[in-house]
Amino acid sequence: MTLRIGVIGTGAIGQDHIRRITNTLSGAKIVAVTDVNAEQAAAVIKNLNLDAKIYANGLELIKSDHVDAILVTSWGPTHEEFVLASIAAGKPVFCEKPLATSAAGCMRIVEAEIAHGKRLVQVGFMRPYDNGYRALKDVLAHGKIGEPLMVHCAHRNPSVGDSYTTDMAITDTIIHEIDVLRWLLDDDYVSVQVVYPRKTKNASGHLADPQIVLMETAKGIRVDVEIFVNCQYGYDIQCEVVGETGVARLPEPASVPMRSQARLSTEILTDWKLRFIDAYDVEIQGFIDTVNDGRLSGPSAWDGYAAAVTADACLEAQKTGDIVPVTLQQKPAFYKN
Amino acid sequence: MTLRIGVIGTGAIGQDHIRRITNTLSGAKIVAVTDVNAEQAAAVIKNLNLDAKIYANGLELIKSDHVDAILVTSWGPTHEEFVLASIAAGKPVFCEKPLATSAAGCMRIVEAEIAHGKRLVQVGFMRPYDNGYRALKDVLAHGKIGEPLMVHCAHRNPSVGDSYTTDMAITDTIIHEIDVLRWLLDDDYVSVQVVYPRKTKNASGHLADPQIVLMETAKGIRVDVEIFVNCQYGYDIQCEVVGETGVARLPEPASVPMRSQARLSTEILTDWKLRFIDAYDVEIQGFIDTVNDGRLSGPSAWDGYAAAVTADACLEAQKTGDIVPVTLQQKPAFYKN
Amino acid sequence: MTLRIGVIGTGAIGQDHIRRITNTLSGAKIVAVTDVNAEQAAAVIKNLNLDAKIYANGLELIKSDHVDAILVTSWGPTHEEFVLASIAAGKPVFCEKPLATSAAGCMRIVEAEIAHGKRLVQVGFMRPYDNGYRALKDVLAHGKIGEPLMVHCAHRNPSVGDSYTTDMAITDTIIHEIDVLRWLLDDDYVSVQVVYPRKTKNASGHLADPQIVLMETAKGIRVDVEIFVNCQYGYDIQCEVVGETGVARLPEPASVPMRSQARLSTEILTDWKLRFIDAYDVEIQGFIDTVNDGRLSGPSAWDGYAAAVTADACLEAQKTGDIVPVTLQQKPAFYKN
Amino acid sequence: MTLRIGVIGTGAIGQDHIRRITNTLSGAKIVAVTDVNAEQAAAVIKNLNLDAKIYANGLELIKSDHVDAILVTSWGPTHEEFVLASIAAGKPVFCEKPLATSAAGCMRIVEAEIAHGKRLVQVGFMRPYDNGYRALKDVLAHGKIGEPLMVHCAHRNPSVGDSYTTDMAITDTIIHEIDVLRWLLDDDYVSVQVVYPRKTKNASGHLADPQIVLMETAKGIRVDVEIFVNCQYGYDIQCEVVGETGVARLPEPASVPMRSQARLSTEILTDWKLRFIDAYDVEIQGFIDTVNDGRLSGPSAWDGYAAAVTADACLEAQKTGDIVPVTLQQKPAFYKN
Repeated sequence: MTLRIGVIGTGAIGQDHIRRITNTLSGAKIVAVTDVNAEQAAAVIKNLNLDAKIYANGLELIKSDHVDAILVTSWGPTHEEFVLASIAAGKPVFCEKPLATSAAGCMRIVEAEIAHGKRLVQVGFMRPYDNGYRALKDVLAHGKIGEPLMVHCAHRNPSVGDSYTTDMAITDTIIHEIDVLRWLLDDDYVSVQVVYPRKTKNASGHLADPQIVLMETAKGIRVDVEIFVNCQYGYDIQCEVVGETGVARLPEPASVPMRSQARLSTEILTDWKLRFIDAYDVEIQGFIDTVNDGRLSGPSAWDGYAAAVTADACLEAQKTGDIVPVTLQQKPAFYKN
Repeated sequence: MTLRIGVIGTGAIGQDHIRRITNTLSGAKIVAVTDVNAEQAAAVIKNLNLDAKIYANGLELIKSDHVDAILVTSWGPTHEEFVLASIAAGKPVFCEKPLATSAAGCMRIVEAEIAHGKRLVQVGFMRPYDNGYRALKDVLAHGKIGEPLMVHCAHRNPSVGDSYTTDMAITDTIIHEIDVLRWLLDDDYVSVQVVYPRKTKNASGHLADPQIVLMETAKGIRVDVEIFVNCQYGYDIQCEVVGETGVARLPEPASVPMRSQARLSTEILTDWKLRFIDAYDVEIQGFIDTVNDGRLSGPSAWDGYAAAVTADACLEAQKTGDIVPVTLQQKPAFYKN
Repeated sequence: MTLRIGVIGTGAIGQDHIRRITNTLSGAKIVAVTDVNAEQAAAVIKNLNLDAKIYANGLELIKSDHVDAILVTSWGPTHEEFVLASIAAGKPVFCEKPLATSAAGCMRIVEAEIAHGKRLVQVGFMRPYDNGYRALKDVLAHGKIGEPLMVHCAHRNPSVGDSYTTDMAITDTIIHEIDVLRWLLDDDYVSVQVVYPRKTKNASGHLADPQIVLMETAKGIRVDVEIFVNCQYGYDIQCEVVGETGVARLPEPASVPMRSQARLSTEILTDWKLRFIDAYDVEIQGFIDTVNDGRLSGPSAWDGYAAAVTADACLEAQKTGDIVPVTLQQKPAFYKN
Repeated sequence: MTLRIGVIGTGAIGQDHIRRITNTLSGAKIVAVTDVNAEQAAAVIKNLNLDAKIYANGLELIKSDHVDAILVTSWGPTHEEFVLASIAAGKPVFCEKPLATSAAGCMRIVEAEIAHGKRLVQVGFMRPYDNGYRALKDVLAHGKIGEPLMVHCAHRNPSVGDSYTTDMAITDTIIHEIDVLRWLLDDDYVSVQVVYPRKTKNASGHLADPQIVLMETAKGIRVDVEIFVNCQYGYDIQCEVVGETGVARLPEPASVPMRSQARLSTEILTDWKLRFIDAYDVEIQGFIDTVNDGRLSGPSAWDGYAAAVTADACLEAQKTGDIVPVTLQQKPAFYKN
């Protein structure tokens, strides 16, 4: 069985997904594309040698009888509309983050999906598909370090452009930790706090960098995440879980140990795209396989909602310096495992 | 374009390849199978839900108009016949090791392929497709440790059964290092020597374990390979290249660093199948892609021949204790890059 | 020149120092001891085969013409009196922590020493004498990671007895980080906060364990210290400094890397006494050498005062949950380098 | 009790020992020195502020009533004479390597010491005093990796001057491995072989560099030692012991792990003097303590003899390319533990 996929938005990430579905993954093919820039959509079809039709807009594509499932990789503010339309059409939809630009928007999707009665939405959080995080979760699941008590994280980029603003540390950067730690710990946040260390001289004048976000979960686990987007030395994702009987860490990406020039060293990646490149493959293959099997199971609309609410609390904490509560609605039975 | 593949031999490795071509890889499908045990072939088709035809024997399968390319995963002594028949039919063939059970057999394949005029044969050496070895080759290619002078290797298995005999240290174990180091160093062996350390008490009475194989290449590089197939602690593949200005090592497989019970530790695999599982995917995808593109480029019949000649010299060195020359025929221009 | 040392307090730590001065270090000898338990003092002289006199009490010992310098290793509440008496006698004194049981007591010592006009007091903070911390400070001093912005620490013990109370996390445990980070960063704290993660089931009912102390320095550096005294797996001291261009970490104690039972591992110490055993030697030798040279330079009475004030703020933060300011008096010119 | 030591030879290593005995170690003092360059001896006394007498020559110094024990740090060819004279005087003697310039010379010392009836001689092999090697021996002694079967070593220097000749790879470089592995394994060599890898372009024209020495012990353990004295990148001593159930490695010297410029790295030493600097302290303190206790126990004259015989075999193997037997005399009961 081959899943016929339509792609809304043929920018960088859209093209990446088209390429992997066409050349690397199995069980699906791209049959439809659309973009606000119709020329770009046409160019993508031509360059990637696709046997796909161009649609006038996302809503047309969603309705097409030739399309079984939808990939939403368009501009963030359009996500909610396309996801809701996909649900209305009863078609599975993979939506890159953000699911919607507000928690309320996410909740509308949650409600629509529940009304439909069956899971149709997967949000594009890829870290749960990373081998390293999976191995870490496996360590926890097997009780090898006991119950988790604390998590120490760092999210470091070598540098960001001048357009990166202080709030993006939440919406673009720590949003990944917010999601993956919920999944890793099977827990939700109850409060957040943001503190500002001494600022690096390598950040733009308007940007607070680094920042530290302190979070507490419903189980009482304390999470601290250092966000440092001008760390200069590399793209470096650290995650250490301290449990009752031991400590486990996210593996470093495999690299050739070298002895050279009086140093014993391994490489640290500098390009974030390379860090989780394998995870994207697993993520999209997972979407295809679970849709084909009728048991969609990746990050859900509820996960998108929970991340949005937590991010909103972090944004408030950035401004006030206070410990800000994270108030989620009651989790619907629909989303319980 | 979808490559239609026929598989000769539906044992464990045959089934693995069928599964990955069907479920994981892209660009090919299994359309034909055969096995000396016809019932097993039928069961494989049923269990894996294949749309494939059963053929009476390998030669029939090779001749079929519905088959574009052949996978030979049958019993070793049958390989030569099926590979030669594939060449005769002008069809690309992927043959698991050994290419043939003798150097002379390998040479007959080399000659048939040259006579055909175009590469059709890929031998199933998968280590050049391993990310770790590729990263190591990349380090060498970029001159990061200068010209290689020495290579220190270890090939350790936790244990082997009583059926594993002393010569299998060459034909089943170090054969992988023989191949991958030729590729890594772009070099050939000129002599080999085998020495026997103190025997472990955990080996069968008839088995010399561990063994050390010392090899010299045409460029003068000295290679030592420890073979220790009852090392108890894990499946462990080590490779260290010492160059004129630095040293580079094969990366350890990524693993969660844990602090527990007074040890800081990572896991060592114990199942050899897991060590290169990703490499098998890349290898077979590489075969599919390069066949589809008409530029087959993986381990060649010549590589199979060179490995066979080197292994023969090692077997003699095992018996005599002497430094045994490795005498390859002149490499045909056909196989030069 | 041989420094004649008198020791007040012949308990465990006192005996350790007597032993190292007698057997391992150079330039000093033990000539006088005293203890509230005179029999124990006599036993120590006999067991360690010392040529030393027993004094009736600390004040007698301090006054003796045969004593050049004093080691105070008695019960904490007696420290202030003996240090003040040593200053009054114009004799160099090494005092184990705490310098005094209150910040006010420390300040009385500071004032007495300044009135004397020359440094006489060294406080027993040994971590600045540890090779690892020294190497870390060297990395900072050479600008190898740029200006420090954040410090992430952990102080973990395998377990503590029932007598260990929540406040001892400050007074007995993090007091070492409080001191060594002041030295490492050449900075002072301006505020502290304490948060309580989910409690481990392995702690006594009355004990909050783990705890996280968040500190800010005058330069704006953010420090977080995880205190986890029932971590089960080992005695583990972690310190990571994040600078503007890189990150540096306290080295793990050297240990034999082993491959065994499917793990690649090194040992983690479980006995805290072994972790800094070399540092004690360097510390006491440093006291002897700098006293003999007339240029006493180790952790000063001011350092003892600053640690006491910071610890007091932490104790308040433990109780209130607030961000508590750390208010030090103006640092006297006497203590500037 | 203070051991009164006389030093014969006040060159670099002699001065180092004088300095550590005077400033760092306990239980001994330098009371006598002599050197073929009397002015240098006088300068050393002055510069190090010693209360020591200058003697006309080594034999005078050995005979002096004021000297309890002798340190021989003079030119190699003079060692035998001074050690024999010390034995004749019944005085303990620490002799830097070589004990004598020939195996026959070493044997004369062995015979003299046996005739004297009590151990008086310690040879200056310092690696058994290195914490890393001691920890490795401890792992073996506790059976943590089972019986040792193989040892893989490397001895790498960043570079050597033009005066370093091919035979010095044996007499100056691998001599340390020859000794320390005898101690580590509690074993003796029975044969040696030398092979020459491709030569580095960074070596002098006359020098074979690198070299690999292959040794077999009486227990059948196979040892390979890579000697590479122009490796450019650092002074690097590697030792890996493969046992029946696991593998143990000499620890890397502790170093600050740094993340900087896209590398995660630790430092590799480049100055050999720093690598074993702590071991020298332990070694000489061990000599002082065991002499003072009348139970001298470090590397013995027999160890010096065994190293000399093995080195001679290696020198022959360098020239012939053959597997050369190592023929030791029967070990006298005198030297058995």
